[in-house]
Amino acid sequence: ISSSSHARKEGWKTWEIDDNDLPQLKVNQTRLMAELHHTCQWGSGVPWKDATDPSTQTGMSRLALSDADKAARDWFVETTRSLGCDVTVDAMGNIFAVRPGSYGPKGIPTYCGSHLDTQPAGGRYDGILGVLAGVEMLRVMKEHDVETAYPVGVVNWTNEEGARFPISMVSSGVWAGEIPLERAHALKEVGGSGATMRDELERIGYLGTVPASYEAMPMAAHFELHIEQGPILEAENRRIGIVEGVQAYRWYTVEVVGREAHTGTTPFSARADALLTAARMIAYSHEIAVRKYALASTGILSLSPGSVNTVPGKVTFSLDIRAPFDKTLDDIERTLFQFDFRQIVSSEYTKGRELSFTWTVDSVSPATRFQKSCIEVAKSAAESLGKESSRNVRVMTSGAGHDSVYTSRRCPTSMIFVRCRDGVSHNPEEYASPEDCATGAEVLLQSVLRYDRLRYF
Amino acid sequence: ISSSSHARKEGWKTWEIDDNDLPQLKVNQTRLMAELHHTCQWGSGVPWKDATDPSTQTGMSRLALSDADKAARDWFVETTRSLGCDVTVDAMGNIFAVRPGSYGPKGIPTYCGSHLDTQPAGGRYDGILGVLAGVEMLRVMKEHDVETAYPVGVVNWTNEEGARFPISMVSSGVWAGEIPLERAHALKEVGGSGATMRDELERIGYLGTVPASYEAMPMAAHFELHIEQGPILEAENRRIGIVEGVQAYRWYTVEVVGREAHTGTTPFSARADALLTAARMIAYSHEIAVRKYALASTGILSLSPGSVNTVPGKVTFSLDIRAPFDKTLDDIERTLFQFDFRQIVSSEYTKGRELSFTWTVDSVSPATRFQKSCIEVAKSAAESLGKESSRNVRVMTSGAGHDSVYTSRRCPTSMIFVRCRDGVSHNPEEYASPEDCATGAEVLLQSVLRYDRLRYF
Ligand SMILES: NC(=O)NCCC(=O)O
Ligand SMILES: NC(=O)NCCC(=O)O
Repeated sequence: ISSSSHARKEGWKTWEIDDNDLPQLKVNQTRLMAELHHTCQWGSGVPWKDATDPSTQTGMSRLALSDADKAARDWFVETTRSLGCDVTVDAMGNIFAVRPGSYGPKGIPTYCGSHLDTQPAGGRYDGILGVLAGVEMLRVMKEHDVETAYPVGVVNWTNEEGARFPISMVSSGVWAGEIPLERAHALKEVGGSGATMRDELERIGYLGTVPASYEAMPMAAHFELHIEQGPILEAENRRIGIVEGVQAYRWYTVEVVGREAHTGTTPFSARADALLTAARMIAYSHEIAVRKYALASTGILSLSPGSVNTVPGKVTFSLDIRAPFDKTLDDIERTLFQFDFRQIVSSEYTKGRELSFTWTVDSVSPATRFQKSCIEVAKSAAESLGKESSRNVRVMTSGAGHDSVYTSRRCPTSMIFVRCRDGVSHNPEEYASPEDCATGAEVLLQSVLRYDRLRYF
Repeated sequence: ISSSSHARKEGWKTWEIDDNDLPQLKVNQTRLMAELHHTCQWGSGVPWKDATDPSTQTGMSRLALSDADKAARDWFVETTRSLGCDVTVDAMGNIFAVRPGSYGPKGIPTYCGSHLDTQPAGGRYDGILGVLAGVEMLRVMKEHDVETAYPVGVVNWTNEEGARFPISMVSSGVWAGEIPLERAHALKEVGGSGATMRDELERIGYLGTVPASYEAMPMAAHFELHIEQGPILEAENRRIGIVEGVQAYRWYTVEVVGREAHTGTTPFSARADALLTAARMIAYSHEIAVRKYALASTGILSLSPGSVNTVPGKVTFSLDIRAPFDKTLDDIERTLFQFDFRQIVSSEYTKGRELSFTWTVDSVSPATRFQKSCIEVAKSAAESLGKESSRNVRVMTSGAGHDSVYTSRRCPTSMIFVRCRDGVSHNPEEYASPEDCATGAEVLLQSVLRYDRLRYF
């Protein structure tokens, strides 16, 4: 292959490649951003309070497997095909677009990827930037007629957010063999319509026939560009984060069952108030998280029957707890569910009168360490960008889960973070500057190229 | 009129009527209960856990102005017409069925009444018993060819529960001139469909042309039979409560606005968590109520955007506070909204970062005293029922609001309570025994007859 002779021979275990031995490819910032906002026509959501840039006057609301998601997927398939890719859809609707390498189409590709689905009131960058940067990578490669030894791929993972079907990264989880296909297919959408993932995959035409599996669709490596979603890079005035791991998190559903009663005639001593109990549990979960330096959050709560003058008989709520170490979550889980929630249920006010609660674990994402090979490749790609670049780069941990968590179970993986304003994410006002997006895309492109070189030598 | 000469002449201010001077009319218990359960075919709701009586194997779910409510109304109109009544529907859909008196149809009627609407997960007795006992009264009067001096009426009030359109007793409130018609007509149903009371009155054909007003439809008195909905009669083993007043209550909507954020990447210090704040407010409102010997309850709560991994940006919840004295509610209102809720919003955890709340008063039902005339009439009617009857009767206050609260602003009013099992109401398992229902209906019938006699002399 043409540029292979420029690469220094160092073998698999080292990752130093002289910058001069790599094509100095630039991404086209204007094109990248225009294309990103173009795709945000599908599922554009809540308007900003004070948007000045017309291209970002709304956030996004593109729930997984919705009609809007289908439109974005159709665009992705068409576009990557037109850039010379073979496109494969698996049984979870994951879309793999692969550009052949010089060894021919049969080699295991080096991938980059992320997701096109969003939160119900989300932004234009979370996930979308990673996929669009992958498409920009394909464009740059085509434009400059770049050859790689191995195929290079871009993957769009299904329902990363877990917002519609409440397991995050569920489809990379199935691919990694960590979540059973049947469980994922049977997941029901939040809100009670009863529609399952399988129903919706079928409805929008993305229930592929290829097994969702790392065996059917192997990856040599997985790089993911993403906005940080937190405040660290901005606070430290750095442009790029290289992610070496992801904190642990678990999602639960808690159901509190009490007894419907009249709000005007039922003394507190005779109540089994499911909402008052849930309110105490939510407040308490926050307190225990503060004590243990963890996070606890409730994003969904529903109750019945829902009448001003009826004490709720049933409340269901989600609980999301996170911490750097799995052990912290073990502790919190045991303490909350075995002791503290039980005590709240039988507290002096409610007197335990017919009150009870049940809990289910909906998903577990253990603390994750990415692989040194990918971390170092991404780091040197970032540092090669400019004179002061090492000052601009920070190695860090992710507070959010990503599909890279699951790919790292089956292939070397790392992530590249760019700053987002005020650290705000899962919010329509999520924002990353065009310059930062382009820089991130360039680091992604260089990481994939470097990795390909390293595999070859 | 035939039996007038049997009544002792005592004038308006006294209410002693010798039992021997009144027709000793019995209600037909079997017929009353059969008819009650017959009408529960329209809107039957949640099944009981362990119903043994097949006629009560479900609770009720007959929201005001639903199709089920229309069916029950149609039955009421048809049935009372067939019993010789003139039927009038007013602009709030209140239905007045009037049986002429011997003075002719123009006299002001003595009414009994209640409501046919129910909670979303309600029972077969709350409201329904009062209307059905009124129909049974008409049947007994027809059967025994009873004459009254003045007309006697049965009224079905619209949306007493406030469960669908969130002001309780809204239509008797309009009738009494205490709630503007426009405000009532514009009330939107709970849950966000946007349908108003006026839309729904029109849709089911119960938007009458007669003004909803005590001037257009005057009442000489209003008696209401109702289940107690509380535990006192059962605890004291008494059969009948005579209601001399109703505690004060107010309904509020509280909206907490924070900021959507990622649950995994946003430190507590950077959050404005609308649900955590609402949970603290709900827990706190309970505490203050306990301190002030009042009640506080939240029956409705909704949030957005509703995703496991997004901190809710907005939460709206209802707050229902009650106490015997208006002053207690003044105090709680001031303390909560001017001080304590503000403090929760700016607490150490949330740091007041962009958190704010607003509150609206949705309805105010001041503490109510019923009139001595009606109280005494109902009491002597109850005591005349049997040897030990005075031991069986208790004068009491109602914890729940009733249409009688508003009628008492414009005419003498009282209520008759019968026991309900475990004091449970606003619950599918609400239950009153056939014997107690029939006894209550008999006291109601006797109260209306006695009142008619007293008006005449
Ligand atoms: N990146 C991201 O927001 N992923 C969703 C999974 C999570 O909740 O961390
Ligand atoms: N009786 C009854 O449940 N009325 C509804 C109004 C209230 O909440 O008290």
